[in-house]
Amino acid sequence: MLGSTHGTLTTDFRARVEACGETPRTAVHSTAAPSAADAVAVDVSGRPLHADVPDLDRFFRPESVAVIGASDAEGRPNTGITRQLIAWAERVGARIHPVHPTRPTVFGLACHASVADLPEQVDLAVLLVGDPLPVIEELAEAKVKFAVAFASGFAETGGEGAAAQERLAAAVRRSGLRLLGPNTNLNAFEEFREDLDGPAIALITQSGHQGRPVYTLQELGIRLSHWAPTGNEADLETSDFISYFAERPEVGAIACYVEGLKDGRQFLLAADRAARNGVPVVAVKVGRTETGARMAASHTGKLTGADTVVDAAMRQFGVIRVDGLDELQDTAALLARARKPLADGVVVYSISGGTGAHFSDLATEAGLTLPTLSQAKQDELHQWIPPYLNVANPVDNGGHPVGDWRGRKIIDAILADPAVGVLICPITGPFPPMSDKLAQDLVDAAEQSDKLVCVVWGSPVGTEEAYRTTLLGSSRVATFRTFGNCITAVRAYLGHHRFTAAYRSPFEDAPRTPSPSYRKAQALMRPGQQLSEHAAKQLLRAYGIRVPREQLVTSAAAAVRAAGLVGYPVVMKASGPQLGHKTELGLVKIGLTSASQIRDAYRELTDIARYENVPLDGILVCQMVERGVEMVVGVTQDELFGPTVTVGLGGVLVEVLHDAAVRVPPFGEDQARAMLTELRGHALLEGVRGAPPADVDALVEVVLRVQRMALELGGVLSELDINPLMVLPRGQGAVALDALAICR
Amino acid sequence: MLGSTHGTLTTDFRARVEACGETPRTAVHSTAAPSAADAVAVDVSGRPLHADVPDLDRFFRPESVAVIGASDAEGRPNTGITRQLIAWAERVGARIHPVHPTRPTVFGLACHASVADLPEQVDLAVLLVGDPLPVIEELAEAKVKFAVAFASGFAETGGEGAAAQERLAAAVRRSGLRLLGPNTNLNAFEEFREDLDGPAIALITQSGHQGRPVYTLQELGIRLSHWAPTGNEADLETSDFISYFAERPEVGAIACYVEGLKDGRQFLLAADRAARNGVPVVAVKVGRTETGARMAASHTGKLTGADTVVDAAMRQFGVIRVDGLDELQDTAALLARARKPLADGVVVYSISGGTGAHFSDLATEAGLTLPTLSQAKQDELHQWIPPYLNVANPVDNGGHPVGDWRGRKIIDAILADPAVGVLICPITGPFPPMSDKLAQDLVDAAEQSDKLVCVVWGSPVGTEEAYRTTLLGSSRVATFRTFGNCITAVRAYLGHHRFTAAYRSPFEDAPRTPSPSYRKAQALMRPGQQLSEHAAKQLLRAYGIRVPREQLVTSAAAAVRAAGLVGYPVVMKASGPQLGHKTELGLVKIGLTSASQIRDAYRELTDIARYENVPLDGILVCQMVERGVEMVVGVTQDELFGPTVTVGLGGVLVEVLHDAAVRVPPFGEDQARAMLTELRGHALLEGVRGAPPADVDALVEVVLRVQRMALELGGVLSELDINPLMVLPRGQGAVALDALAICR
Repeated sequence: MLGSTHGTLTTDFRARVEACGETPRTAVHSTAAPSAADAVAVDVSGRPLHADVPDLDRFFRPESVAVIGASDAEGRPNTGITRQLIAWAERVGARIHPVHPTRPTVFGLACHASVADLPEQVDLAVLLVGDPLPVIEELAEAKVKFAVAFASGFAETGGEGAAAQERLAAAVRRSGLRLLGPNTNLNAFEEFREDLDGPAIALITQSGHQGRPVYTLQELGIRLSHWAPTGNEADLETSDFISYFAERPEVGAIACYVEGLKDGRQFLLAADRAARNGVPVVAVKVGRTETGARMAASHTGKLTGADTVVDAAMRQFGVIRVDGLDELQDTAALLARARKPLADGVVVYSISGGTGAHFSDLATEAGLTLPTLSQAKQDELHQWIPPYLNVANPVDNGGHPVGDWRGRKIIDAILADPAVGVLICPITGPFPPMSDKLAQDLVDAAEQSDKLVCVVWGSPVGTEEAYRTTLLGSSRVATFRTFGNCITAVRAYLGHHRFTAAYRSPFEDAPRTPSPSYRKAQALMRPGQQLSEHAAKQLLRAYGIRVPREQLVTSAAAAVRAAGLVGYPVVMKASGPQLGHKTELGLVKIGLTSASQIRDAYRELTDIARYENVPLDGILVCQMVERGVEMVVGVTQDELFGPTVTVGLGGVLVEVLHDAAVRVPPFGEDQARAMLTELRGHALLEGVRGAPPADVDALVEVVLRVQRMALELGGVLSELDINPLMVLPRGQGAVALDALAICR
Repeated sequence: MLGSTHGTLTTDFRARVEACGETPRTAVHSTAAPSAADAVAVDVSGRPLHADVPDLDRFFRPESVAVIGASDAEGRPNTGITRQLIAWAERVGARIHPVHPTRPTVFGLACHASVADLPEQVDLAVLLVGDPLPVIEELAEAKVKFAVAFASGFAETGGEGAAAQERLAAAVRRSGLRLLGPNTNLNAFEEFREDLDGPAIALITQSGHQGRPVYTLQELGIRLSHWAPTGNEADLETSDFISYFAERPEVGAIACYVEGLKDGRQFLLAADRAARNGVPVVAVKVGRTETGARMAASHTGKLTGADTVVDAAMRQFGVIRVDGLDELQDTAALLARARKPLADGVVVYSISGGTGAHFSDLATEAGLTLPTLSQAKQDELHQWIPPYLNVANPVDNGGHPVGDWRGRKIIDAILADPAVGVLICPITGPFPPMSDKLAQDLVDAAEQSDKLVCVVWGSPVGTEEAYRTTLLGSSRVATFRTFGNCITAVRAYLGHHRFTAAYRSPFEDAPRTPSPSYRKAQALMRPGQQLSEHAAKQLLRAYGIRVPREQLVTSAAAAVRAAGLVGYPVVMKASGPQLGHKTELGLVKIGLTSASQIRDAYRELTDIARYENVPLDGILVCQMVERGVEMVVGVTQDELFGPTVTVGLGGVLVEVLHDAAVRVPPFGEDQARAMLTELRGHALLEGVRGAPPADVDALVEVVLRVQRMALELGGVLSELDINPLMVLPRGQGAVALDALAICR
C-alpha cells in the first residue's frame, strides 16, 4: 500500500507499514530489487528503502491488447483512437481485441461483448469508456496486467472528480493490475523510429502536449524508446517509470515533464536508482512560483510541494532540473548521446577572438572550467594559427586556417589534449566559405574522437546546408541554437558524470531501527502541544545535542540558588508550553550578575507572564554563552517529502535574508557539509573580523542528530527549531541556546 | 579633448577642461546638442553634461569615397576589399576614387597617386594601408571628413601596438577628421535590404563577426539601417554611434556588442540621450567574469570596468543588457518593431493546460505580470471554450476551438481586454491540423491589433510551413525558439517602456558649481594620505552629515572632561592617520560609564598604539549611539566611470554577504531609494523582531550628500567609507559613527 498511497501523508509511517503487512505491488514482480530480503526494507520512519520497480515490459510491448469501448462508427472520437491503436498494434506485432457490448466487428476485427468474453488473457486493456471504474474488477478477474484510462473529469476538475479518482485508485489497488491514467492519451502508443540507434531518451510527461517537443527530437535523429504519458497518476506515477527506465539498457537519459509529484519518497528512491545506474534524469518541474503551482494543481489535481524543497531534493539525488521545454530537449539529447567525459576541461574554439572571449565569459560565469592549454599545445596550435592570435583557450584561429587542411588539424589537436573533455565551437555568423568546411571538420573529428563536440549555430532561420545536413545529420556533434542552452546542457553533462562518479546512496546508511534516544524522546512528547523550552531542550539532550547548564525554578530564592550552581553571569527566561517570541514579550533577561538582579528579574518575568496571561512551568536560569556564531537548525514538515532538515544563519540573518539550506532525509555527512557551503553567509563560520573559525564539525554533528530526530520522531514531531544554536570556536562544540518543539 | 580621451582617468577633470579650453570635436558640428550654451556644459566634477553627437550622415552615406591602397591585382587581400567597396559605392550612389602610388587604374577606374591628387574633396577615405598614421595628415590637408582604418596590430596586440594606436589617435585628434578603427572591416559597407520597412535596428559591434547574427535578422524581414564595426576605437567609439543613432528617425532599436567601453561618461551620456528619445539600447557587454574581462582586454586592448559597476550604470540609464547573441537578436528585434505597450499585463494562451501553467510559472518567476482576467472576460471566452477549462490566465482552449471560427474570436477577445498588453502563445508541439490555423489566426489578429503577440515555436528543426512562412513572414508577430528568450525579450520590452515613461535625465539636475561645503572640505584634504577618523568626520560634517558628539583629547584628564561634555556612556577610540582596523587592534573601547574607566581606557589605548607603533593624533571620546540599523555608505573609484557611490548593510553583513548596491553619479533621489530596495537585507530598514522602522529618508539624504562629495571631491578624494552609519528610528536621523577617507 505504501508505494501507491498518495495525497496526504499519514502521521506514523511505521504504524502504517505494520498495519498493511505487505504491499499489493508484489502482485507485479519487481525486476531489480537489490535482494529478496531488502525488497520490503523500511527505514526507522517506516518509509521504504528501495524503489518498487514495476515490470512494465508487457505494458510497453504487449503481446495482446483489449480495446474497451472500441468503435468504428464515423464521427465518434473513439473511432479515431481505435484506428490508431490497430495501426500501432500492427506495427509492434500485438494481437488486438476490440470490446464493445453491441458491435460484432470493429474495423473488420471480431469484437467481444465484454472483458469476460476475451479469447485470451491480454497484457493490456485500453479503456476508452467514460467511467473506467466498473471495468477494473472485470479486468482483474480476467487477469489483465495493465490498463490505460483515457477518461477525463477526475482530480483535474477538483472536489468531486478527486473523489471519483480516489475510488478508481482504491479499485485498482484491490485489483492487482496497474493503471496508467486517467486523463491520459495515446502517447504511449506513438510511433518510435526504428532506424535510429545509440542510447535513447525515455520520456515521461503528465501532459501529453508538453511531451511533444522531446518526442519530435527524432527528427534530429535522436532515438526515443518510450513515452509514458502519466496523466492524473491514480496508480502508476512518474517515479515508477523513472525506476523502470533506469533499468533498461537502451535508455541513455530520462526526460520528464512533471506538474506535481505524487509521493516524495518514491521519487527520491527512483532518482536514487537512476543515480546508482548512472542514468541521467532531466526534469521540468512546474511550480517555480506559487502562481504556477496553483495552476499546476488545478490542471492535474496533484499535490505540489514547496518549490525550494523539490529543488533541494532533486539536487541531492542528481536530478537535473531545467526550465523551458527547449532546455529539456537540448539537455536530454546531449546527455543521452554523449559518452562519459574524459576530462572536465572545456575549450572554446572559434574563428573570431570576439566570439571566443564572449562565449568563454559566459561559460566561465556558469561554472564551467576553461583550462589554459599547455605551452606545448599552444606551440602545436601555432603551427597552423598565426602567432599573434590567442590559442590559450579560447582558441582563436582568425578565420583563414578553417578554409584548408589546417582546420581539421587544429580540431584534432585540441581534442587530443588530455585536459580537454569538451570542445565548443560557436558559429555565430555562418559564412558558407568558412562555416561549411568548419562544420564538416567538426563532424569528422567528432566521429573519430570520444570527446564531446558542441556547436552553437547563430543564424536566425537555420536553412543553411551546413546546419541542416552536416551538423544535424551527425550523431556525434551536439548542435544548439542558443548560447544559454549549450552552456546549460554542457554543465548538466559534466555535472551528471561528476555526481554519479561520487554518488553513494544515502538509503544504504539510513537507520532502520530506533536509536536509544528514541525511547527517552517519546516520553517527552505531548501530542498536539508545543513543548516548553525546558522540555524541548531535554529532547535535544536525549539526542546528544548540547544545551547550556540550566535549572527550571519556581521561586526567586530557588533562582538565586540555581544561579550559584549554573555560574554567573546567567540568563533568565520564562518557560512554558505555547510560549514563542519570548524576546519580543520581554521574557528574557541576559547578563545577570548578582543575587539581587536575579530576584528582580524573577519578579519582572513572572509579572509579565501574568500580565500577558502566559502559563509558565517556571523560570529557566541558564548559563550564559556568548562567543560563537549563531545558527538555526530545524525540522519542518513538507507536504510531499515529510520532515525536512534546515540549517541557516541565526537571528536577524535567517529572518531577513532567508539564508538557509534544506535537505530531505536521508542524507549523509557530505550533504550536511554541503548545506553549510550553500549558505551565502558561509564565511561567518570561517571567522571574520578577527573572530576564530567556528566548530563546523560540531555543527555538522548537530545537523545529523537533528536528521535522526526527524527520521525517528517525524510521525510525532511536527516542528523543531533550534534558534540560536551557538557554534563555538573550533574544538569547543555547539550549544542549543533555545529550542522550540511542536508535537503532532 | 575630453570626449576622445581614453585609457586612464586623470585626477582632476575640472583642471583638464580648463586647460583644454574647448574640444576639437567642435570641428564636426553636433547635430542635436540641446543648446549652444549647453554644448560645452560640464558638471562640478568637470565632466560633460551632454553627449557630443557627431554628425555621421556623410560617414554612412558619403557622396565620394577615396580608397587608399586600392588594388585590382589578383591574389592581394586589398583587391577583394576594393571590389566590394566599388560594388557598394555603386549601390549607394557614391563616387569612388582609388588611390595608389603606382597604378594608373583600378578595376577600370582612374587611380590617383596620392591623397593630394584627389579630384574632389571626399567625404570618406578607406585606408587599406598597413600603417594608416602617415596618411592622416594628408587626409586632414585634403579636408576629408571621415576615415576608416582596417589595419590590425594596434592595441589588440598589447604594449607596442597600444603605443602605435595612441600615436594614431593623437594624429586624428590634431587632424579634425573622425576615424573608425583601426582593426575594423567592411561591415559598415554591407548591403542593407531596401525592401524592408518599419523601424530598423542600428548595430554597433567591436568585433565584426559578432555582429553577423543581428545583421542576418534581415532574413526574417527585420530591417537594419546601419552597422558600425568600431574595432579598436582609436577615435569614434560605441557611445558616439549610440548618440548618433538615437537621433535617427528610422532607428527603432540600437543593438550593441561591446567588449570594453572607452569612456564611461560618454557611454552614460549616450545612453541618456537614447533614454530621453525613447530609443531602446540592447547590449551584450563581455566581462561577466574576470577571465572574460581579461580575454576581452587582450582582444581589443580596451579598459574593462568592474562588471557590477557596468551593470549598475546600464540599469541606471535603461540599457538592456543580455548575454547571448541569440538574446541580442531576439530582444533587439522585438524592441525595434513592437509598438508602445497599452498595458503591462501578459496573457498566456495555449491549446494545453499544461503548457499554459508551465509557461505562466516561468513568466511570473521572471517578474512579468499575469493579471487574472475579469469575470466578464472569462464568461466571454467561455462562449467558445468548454466551461471546465481555465480561462482566467493562462487561457487554455483545450485544442478544439482553434480548428474553427472560434479560434480567432478567442484571440481577438483576449487582445481587446484593456488589462492585456501582450499575448504569448507557446506552440510547443506543432501539430499541423491545429497549429497551422492557430498561427494564421495569431498573425491575422496581430495585424489588426496594436498589442504585442508572441509565439514560442517548440519543434526542434523548424521546417514547418506555419513557422517558416506564416509566423516568420509576419512583421507583427514576434516568434521565438526558446521559452527563455521570449521571456527575456518581453520583460525587456515592458521594462523599457516603463523606464522611459518615468525617465528624467539626472544630468539635468547635476550640480555645476561647487557647494559651500567644498571650500571647507578642501582645507581638510591631505594629498596621498589617509585622514584620521577625526578629520574624516570633519569632512562629513562639512557636507552636513551628522557625526556623534566627540572630542579629540591628548590626556587622560582631558578625556574625563570630554566625557562630561559628550555625556556618559562614551566610546573611546584611537585616532590617527593611516589607522584602519581599529577594532581588530583593540583600539576601540565602548560603554564606558565612569571617570576611572575612562582613565584606564586612555592608558590602554595609548599603550596599544605605542606597542603597535601607530602614530596617533589623539584619543576620540565619543557619544555612544546604540539603537539603529548599521549601514555602510562609501565612495570608490572605478577605472571606467570614476567615483561611484555604494550603500550596504553594515558590519558583518557587508563583509560576509557583500550585500551592497552601487550607482554611478549623477543620480537622483529615486535611484538612491532604489539602491536600498535592491539590498537583500532591505527588510532590516523596515524594522524586524519588534525594532522600529529606520529613518530611511535620512539615509537617502546621506547617500545624496555622499554623491555630492564624490562629484565635488572626486579628483582629490580617492576613497570614502562611512562604516557604520547608524540609521536611527524614523524621524531621528542617521549618524556616521566611523569614517575612513583616503586622499589622492
